Order: sequence, then structure tokens, then C-alpha cells
Amino acid sequence: MTHEFEFIEQLKTHRHTHSEVICGIGDDCAIWQVGNQQVLLATDLLIEGIHFDLNQITCAQAGRKALAVNLSDIAAMAGIPRTALVSLGIPKSMKATDAESLMGGIEDLATEYEVAIVGGDTTSHNGPLFINVAITGVMDGRALLRSEAKSGDILFVTGPLGGSLTGHHWSFTPRVKESRLLRSMCDVSSMIDLSDGLASDIRHIANASRVGCVLTEDAIPISHSVENSLSHQQRLLHAISDGEDFELLLTVSADEAETLRRQTEIEMYEIGIMQGDADEILMRRRDGTLVEVSDSGWKHEFQ
Amino acid sequence: MTHEFEFIEQLKTHRHTHSEVICGIGDDCAIWQVGNQQVLLATDLLIEGIHFDLNQITCAQAGRKALAVNLSDIAAMAGIPRTALVSLGIPKSMKATDAESLMGGIEDLATEYEVAIVGGDTTSHNGPLFINVAITGVMDGRALLRSEAKSGDILFVTGPLGGSLTGHHWSFTPRVKESRLLRSMCDVSSMIDLSDGLASDIRHIANASRVGCVLTEDAIPISHSVENSLSHQQRLLHAISDGEDFELLLTVSADEAETLRRQTEIEMYEIGIMQGDADEILMRRRDGTLVEVSDSGWKHEFQ
Repeated sequence: MTHEFEFIEQLKTHRHTHSEVICGIGDDCAIWQVGNQQVLLATDLLIEGIHFDLNQITCAQAGRKALAVNLSDIAAMAGIPRTALVSLGIPKSMKATDAESLMGGIEDLATEYEVAIVGGDTTSHNGPLFINVAITGVMDGRALLRSEAKSGDILFVTGPLGGSLTGHHWSFTPRVKESRLLRSMCDVSSMIDLSDGLASDIRHIANASRVGCVLTEDAIPISHSVENSLSHQQRLLHAISDGEDFELLLTVSADEAETLRRQTEIEMYEIGIMQGDADEILMRRRDGTLVEVSDSGWKHEFQ
Repeated sequence: MTHEFEFIEQLKTHRHTHSEVICGIGDDCAIWQVGNQQVLLATDLLIEGIHFDLNQITCAQAGRKALAVNLSDIAAMAGIPRTALVSLGIPKSMKATDAESLMGGIEDLATEYEVAIVGGDTTSHNGPLFINVAITGVMDGRALLRSEAKSGDILFVTGPLGGSLTGHHWSFTPRVKESRLLRSMCDVSSMIDLSDGLASDIRHIANASRVGCVLTEDAIPISHSVENSLSHQQRLLHAISDGEDFELLLTVSADEAETLRRQTEIEMYEIGIMQGDADEILMRRRDGTLVEVSDSGWKHEFQ
């Protein structure tokens, strides 16, 4: 992961760009202005042995997830997914029926989300199975970026967190419908999908928006997927650091927060407030003390 | 390759589509209607051990080619390349400087063709290096498809063929400028880029347009890259079947052909005529006889 982030930072500084690129590397999707329309672009790569193990899941599940994570990127901008390009590296030993199941997993989800698979490239090779999906989407309103959260904005999340790696991440619902509904309800200031985990992903909003946050320990919803026999502290740690939740994390102004508290259409948890310096990701404990949150949990008593 | 084509055929029959998709799987790019603009979409995947050998070429060359083949797809439609998404599977043993060279090769060509690299995904893994590029482009006029050649149309190619695998395919010029110039000069009826070789790629135009062709043996330009010590027949075989030329193959009406014969801006060779049934890919020999051309050469005396 560090490798990936460093690499992205490098790309950010090197790349050629042009005036049609409204938002390049650094958000969930790039935004490309095409005539009077904003086009969203994103890509995600899954590799056998790194992202999945075919002894534990089916080829159809791997295919489904490869598209689902891309759909989640489109959802994070409040966009509408439209097309996908699918590139496959298929092990020479793989059975044709397994390759078909893989494509079936992608195609079923594509049909459900009205995404047209418009092309691809496939090669059999002496190596692990890998699946790359490049997705496009369009905006029918303002794209929701990571960079527009303001001090005093309230933090919400669309579902309980943690334990996704026990199974949920193979079948999660990309929040495409929910994100557009949210934007129609209220003025969302910033949004991101939770892939690396709350403790890590909140940092992307904080850095891009240049404002820190205080999470409320008791408000963080812990998924039933997190082992019940663990202590509350251990369960909370899972909720904020496991990752692969693919719920939406969003911020709205204090006024707009009232709208979200009243609505009943979307599952919604209020988990904190944006405030302080960008590098201050804090959590208010039950006893009122603040602890500093690191990517993988919390570090030490802060004040 | 057969594997890939079968797979593409399967995708063609399975996929969900929608009315914005003007042209799906089956041409060099898909065409997606976005507002009043046509967007081109394509992707190509290069895998170490299949498409390149890092003992023979540099990482920068591999990176360059991964983008170049995508640019060639955009050229084949007469489009303007605009953005690219780059996905990399990087062997854990690869040096950081090599990964940087790889990106440098992509970035230099992207800058030259005014393509913005707007995102990507990179993962290090226990497997071969692979590079997937997903490209977008736009049309500022009619897209040139494979499917619009007519009986009586004349076949042209933009450069000499064969021997590219001895080195040219690492440094070829994607014919982006030439294809748009061509379309501005005359009414091109169909176009494709030569990746698999003339004998194979002409079949894509023939099948999509439902008309065969007769190539003229003596008119086929043979590249200097083809070994000089070989017999004329052997050299010709290389020219039509080696592949990876990345020149444009196009058809124009007999009237429009006059324009192309007179122009001097683009290197251009007239190599045959479209006629007959779609499955009749023939070559007229020096002695006037016709032979049937297979994907890898010519089969037998035809008449």
C-alpha cells in the first residue's frame, strides 16, 4: 500500500495534463470535461495471491469484486457508471469454465448497474490471474470531491464498519444509488468510499480539505461481521482499521446535518466533526479524552 | 491470439449495453456518445514473458509501447487521444529505478501526444511485470470504422510492412497525425491499424464490411527490417504476416483514391482492391494467378 501511495505521489508530480482535466490523480475518480459533460474515469486492479485466493472464493466472486470496487469509486463522486473495459491475465492452467464464471461475475453486476462492457484485452500467461477494470461514468450534477470539507462540518458514514474481510467484501453493495440520493437530499461537502479503513481514508479528506477531525468513539458503528467475543476496544479497532467496507464517508455542514438526521431512506451514522489541523485525526473517548488516530488504530493519549 | 478472439466473440454475445454505446466490442475502439461528443475507449495489456522480455529491451521501451499500442487504436478511428489510466503489476524483485524508467517511457510519449495520465493502480506481486493502459480519445469528425468498406474500394497502407519484431515495434510512430490528415484529405471508407499483420487484419475489414479483397503481390511494400538475403517470396511472407507494423490500413472509393495517389504529405502505398465475398482474401501474383491468403501467408493456387 505504501508502495502504491508513493507511486501515486510520483505520478502526480510527473504527468502531463491539459485543461480538460478538471481533477487528475488524487481523488476516487479523475474528472474529464467532454463538451458540456463531466466524465469520470477510474481503474482498479485485482491480482490473485495479493487481493484474492481462488481456494477461498469463486472466480465469479473475484470478477464481481473487480467491477464492484470501480463502481464504488464512481459512487464516491456521486456519479453514474456507464462503461467498463476489462483486461484479464489468465493463468494457462485455468479452465475455460472458470474464465467464463469470472466474466459472468463481472457481467451480472454490470447488468445490474447498467454498465456496458465495451472492450477489453485478455492474455493467457504463466502467472497469477489478474483482473483490471477501467470504468467510466458521468455526472448529472456537481461531483463530490475529497477536498471540500470545512471546519465544523459533520462526518457521516453509510453503514457499519469492520470485519469485511471475513466475507462482506465479496458481496458488498456499491453505494451508487445512495450517493446520488444523498446529493439530492442535501449539500454534501466532501465524500470518499472506505476502502483502506476509516482511520486511513479519513486522512484523505483531511489532507485534501486541509482540516482535521474528531471522531466520536461511541458513535462509530461496528459491523456484526466483527467477532462478538472480542472486547469493545478490539472491536472498535477492527471497525476503524480493517478496511474494504466500501461504505461512503461524507461531510456536510452543521445545518445540512439536520436533514441527514431526519431522513430515513439511507442508513446513516453520524460519527464526528471536522476541526483542527489537517494532520490531527483524533478520537474522543467515552471518558472525554482525545486520542490520536493512526492509519491502523489509535496511538496514545493526546490531551 | 485465437484464445483472445474467441473470448472477444463471447463478450460480444454476453454483454449488457445501452443506447449511448455507438460501437461496442469489435473495432479498434469503442465509441461512447457523451452529450454531443463521441468518446473513444480502448485498452491494451502487455505482459512480461508474453509480449516483452526485459533481457532484450529496457523498462522505458516496455512502458512506451504499452501506451503506443493504445494510441494506435485511437489513430485507427481517426480520433484524438486525451487521457490514459495506467495499471501496473510490478514484480517484488523489480528495482525502484526500473519502475521509474517504465513510467518515464509512458510519460514521455504521453507528453508528446498530449495525453493526460489521470489515474492508475499499481501493485507489487510475485509474478511477471504487466502494464495495462486504458485510453480515451475524442472525435472531431466521423469515426472511421472497419465496417464501411465497399466493393470496388481501393486499399492503401501508410508504410512498409514486415520485420517489425526485430526492433521497430518498440519505437514505432502511432499514426495519430496521419489518420486525421487522411480523413481531412478524402472520404476514407474504413480503417484499421496493423497489429496482427496485413494477412490477418485485412480479414477484420473484410468480415465487418462483408466484402473480400484482392491484394497485388508487387504492390505490397516490404520493410527494410525484413532480412535482405531472403528470397522475394520469403520477404513478402514476412511483410504480410509478421505483424506489429502499426501502420494504417484503409479503404477509399476509386474516385477518392486519385486524391491519395496525388498527395505527398503522407507515405502511402496502394496495395489492392475490395471485391468478392468476405471470406475471399486473395493475392494476385506476378503471373496473374490468384492465391488465397491465410492469416499466416498464402494457401494454394486459387484459380
